[in-house]
Amino acid sequence: MSRAVYPGSFDPISYGHINLAERGLKIFDELTVAVARNVSKTMLFTPQERLDMVREAFEGVPGVTVDSYDGMTVDYVRSVGANTILRGIRSVTDFEYEFQMALINRHFCDDIETMFMVTSNEHSFLSSHFIKETVALGGDVAAFVPLAVERRLKLKLRGTES
Amino acid sequence: MSRAVYPGSFDPISYGHINLAERGLKIFDELTVAVARNVSKTMLFTPQERLDMVREAFEGVPGVTVDSYDGMTVDYVRSVGANTILRGIRSVTDFEYEFQMALINRHFCDDIETMFMVTSNEHSFLSSHFIKETVALGGDVAAFVPLAVERRLKLKLRGTES
Amino acid sequence: MSRAVYPGSFDPISYGHINLAERGLKIFDELTVAVARNVSKTMLFTPQERLDMVREAFEGVPGVTVDSYDGMTVDYVRSVGANTILRGIRSVTDFEYEFQMALINRHFCDDIETMFMVTSNEHSFLSSHFIKETVALGGDVAAFVPLAVERRLKLKLRGTES
Amino acid sequence: MSRAVYPGSFDPISYGHINLAERGLKIFDELTVAVARNVSKTMLFTPQERLDMVREAFEGVPGVTVDSYDGMTVDYVRSVGANTILRGIRSVTDFEYEFQMALINRHFCDDIETMFMVTSNEHSFLSSHFIKETVALGGDVAAFVPLAVERRLKLKLRGTES
Amino acid sequence: MSRAVYPGSFDPISYGHINLAERGLKIFDELTVAVARNVSKTMLFTPQERLDMVREAFEGVPGVTVDSYDGMTVDYVRSVGANTILRGIRSVTDFEYEFQMALINRHFCDDIETMFMVTSNEHSFLSSHFIKETVALGGDVAAFVPLAVERRLKLKLRGTES
Amino acid sequence: MSRAVYPGSFDPISYGHINLAERGLKIFDELTVAVARNVSKTMLFTPQERLDMVREAFEGVPGVTVDSYDGMTVDYVRSVGANTILRGIRSVTDFEYEFQMALINRHFCDDIETMFMVTSNEHSFLSSHFIKETVALGGDVAAFVPLAVERRLKLKLRGTES
Repeated sequence: MSRAVYPGSFDPISYGHINLAERGLKIFDELTVAVARNVSKTMLFTPQERLDMVREAFEGVPGVTVDSYDGMTVDYVRSVGANTILRGIRSVTDFEYEFQMALINRHFCDDIETMFMVTSNEHSFLSSHFIKETVALGGDVAAFVPLAVERRLKLKLRGTES
Repeated sequence: MSRAVYPGSFDPISYGHINLAERGLKIFDELTVAVARNVSKTMLFTPQERLDMVREAFEGVPGVTVDSYDGMTVDYVRSVGANTILRGIRSVTDFEYEFQMALINRHFCDDIETMFMVTSNEHSFLSSHFIKETVALGGDVAAFVPLAVERRLKLKLRGTES
Repeated sequence: MSRAVYPGSFDPISYGHINLAERGLKIFDELTVAVARNVSKTMLFTPQERLDMVREAFEGVPGVTVDSYDGMTVDYVRSVGANTILRGIRSVTDFEYEFQMALINRHFCDDIETMFMVTSNEHSFLSSHFIKETVALGGDVAAFVPLAVERRLKLKLRGTES
Repeated sequence: MSRAVYPGSFDPISYGHINLAERGLKIFDELTVAVARNVSKTMLFTPQERLDMVREAFEGVPGVTVDSYDGMTVDYVRSVGANTILRGIRSVTDFEYEFQMALINRHFCDDIETMFMVTSNEHSFLSSHFIKETVALGGDVAAFVPLAVERRLKLKLRGTES
Repeated sequence: MSRAVYPGSFDPISYGHINLAERGLKIFDELTVAVARNVSKTMLFTPQERLDMVREAFEGVPGVTVDSYDGMTVDYVRSVGANTILRGIRSVTDFEYEFQMALINRHFCDDIETMFMVTSNEHSFLSSHFIKETVALGGDVAAFVPLAVERRLKLKLRGTES
Repeated sequence: MSRAVYPGSFDPISYGHINLAERGLKIFDELTVAVARNVSKTMLFTPQERLDMVREAFEGVPGVTVDSYDGMTVDYVRSVGANTILRGIRSVTDFEYEFQMALINRHFCDDIETMFMVTSNEHSFLSSHFIKETVALGGDVAAFVPLAVERRLKLKLRGTES
């Protein structure tokens, strides 16, 4: 049985992430979507909030487990008995950072592989950064994130759910 | 049972390709290494020669099938009952072309996924182009390709096996 | 009255080119789609064939003139009394070459500007190179090029219109 | 009559921006240089200061209007009756971010086009970031920004106008 | 006698930096490793700490001087009578920033050249950023930095030397 | 005494190459400009013609030796007792290829270093490819190459020296 971990900060989760996980499930029997709790970048949502939103997004989806972790990604992947890290690529620019991370992870743990899949075209501009900026500027993100996420974004960034 | 196709021109196969296939086997139960017969670029070796070298390289490796195909890659992948294309990335530059190809393949066949893995660091400069150029200029490629491939390269490019 | 030239090799014209010209017409009153006759790359179609296909594609479209030219693009642009070159960008990779060309054209003629527009997402992988390769490999390009172009491609690359 | 908006944070405006606006005026009859008030990055100058400097830079230039706006750029562009966003590109690296923004803006408003022009060679390294860093380190930026901007930069970053 | 300055923030110094300096010494008779005191990015270590670590790393190495400086790099380089800036490149991505800096430095001082050398393959992912992140996440960096630097990193980021 | 080799195909030599060699001479006591005779790309000029043009360009310049070589660059560099390869970079795009070459050369010969210098801004678009294309299209390249080179280009590409 093949098993992969899809790690990320998910600040917040978007339809782009969800679409990627669905694609990953065509290849892996089990997929653990894992929220990195301690990340060096400043996050909008707390680790618990990010985890809650990911849980809601994948509730009832067979083959998907949702979890969060501290420390290094490779250590977490090994601890759950997986040997593959799944990452999505939206653009060539994205790949530069991911490529460095894959080399670093391999340095620390040569028996864990990183696999990249290309995000679907319609989600290619769905970075969490732009979603947050759009909400902050008053734009509509209903096409980008689940309803519950949209509400939380508005509450955080506009102080109201509408 | 998961199954992937690792397509390429393999002109010729190198230790970089072989290493990638081995990494792929950690994830997929079966891997078909498939030589594209008709490619638009000019090849040094004939389709049959390229196929022979790939066969020799993977002889007796459990889980690996070797094959060749004409026509579009996605059509071949579907014809063998696989749903994943495996491709190796040596550098960010590499990825630009691969990213375009993945988008195109998805256009033609949305249920076939392309998965990318990063070539190991020590093989990062092993493009078939540079291997051929090195042999043509009199350099030593014993560290890059199997012995049988080295002999064929010398015969083609220097007119002698030594 | 603003006027731009949209130069290219158009080997052959695709829906991506046509979409870009339509977008350009929202900004410029007149647009000359100009086929470069002498290009250093090897072309599949003759200059006359490329010109014919472009003419057919824009027949009856108000605001569009179709033409062909020899020599340097900036000289042609000046000769028709325009001061803007319009170019489409499908991806970041595309832009590297275009950026160099824009600098060179500015060197030769500082009063002619190059303006770039982004190709629509659904046409982002429509390079003429990939369209030709797809036809050669037996794939279907009806979604990428006008019917008349598809027929010519099949005749050239497969020796038959079907 | 063609009309474009040239939006930006202008923190502060440089000769690179001014040169680009002048080039834009060769193509568009009217150009609105629009200061984005709410931007996610930390700014050195307040929105009012940035607006003042842009106003001073274009005072008396025919065809140029100066304005500021809140919210999303596409909403502002539509509100002033324009259909084109003008952006300058200094380098290929620059373009990666701009390309993403153009795709996002098109998603929100498909009838507003983004047009890119290449900054003149002599201004190619004039990012506002480097101008600020240069002033902070004691360097001379008289060749990069108008005198009034230079004074404000020194006052902010060195606490004195000299 | 040829002389170069190898400037940087060295926050902290890693084996990648040390390896590059050693390579530089094959070409230049004297190399000054110079810690930039005032940098716009937020640093983990104080200028004095960064200087101390660099000093320890190059203690007793013939041909190497260690120093720190304020203000613009080109001014410092000129003040010590050197005409070359040495910089290391780990990846293509790295180069984009370095290329801009080289153009800017040349603008301010055309008789000072920037020379780039490629970091050795095994150090290619040794950015100071990733080293700090690894320590913060509990990873082992003994292979990346001298022992004394490792201790300081742990003390800063974990509050203990182990 | 420091010594570097500046290798290239020089098809033909341009003011960009000459400027780079002059910059290199500020750092190295001796510089050998070395024409690669056997290159995989198709050349416009014969090895002898390329060598002749390089010789003419550097005639009487102290510190510069002109030579040509067959085989691998690192073997040639070692044979003349140098330990540095000098290469010019015109743009970030350029660097991708050069970076791969530097890694390959280091693999074959770890004690030979590649050093990169940035071409001066005014020569940034002077690729030999564009110079040849410009002459073929009837453009003026007097600002790009020495008079003797311009004459040879016209003779080759237009069949006449004017």
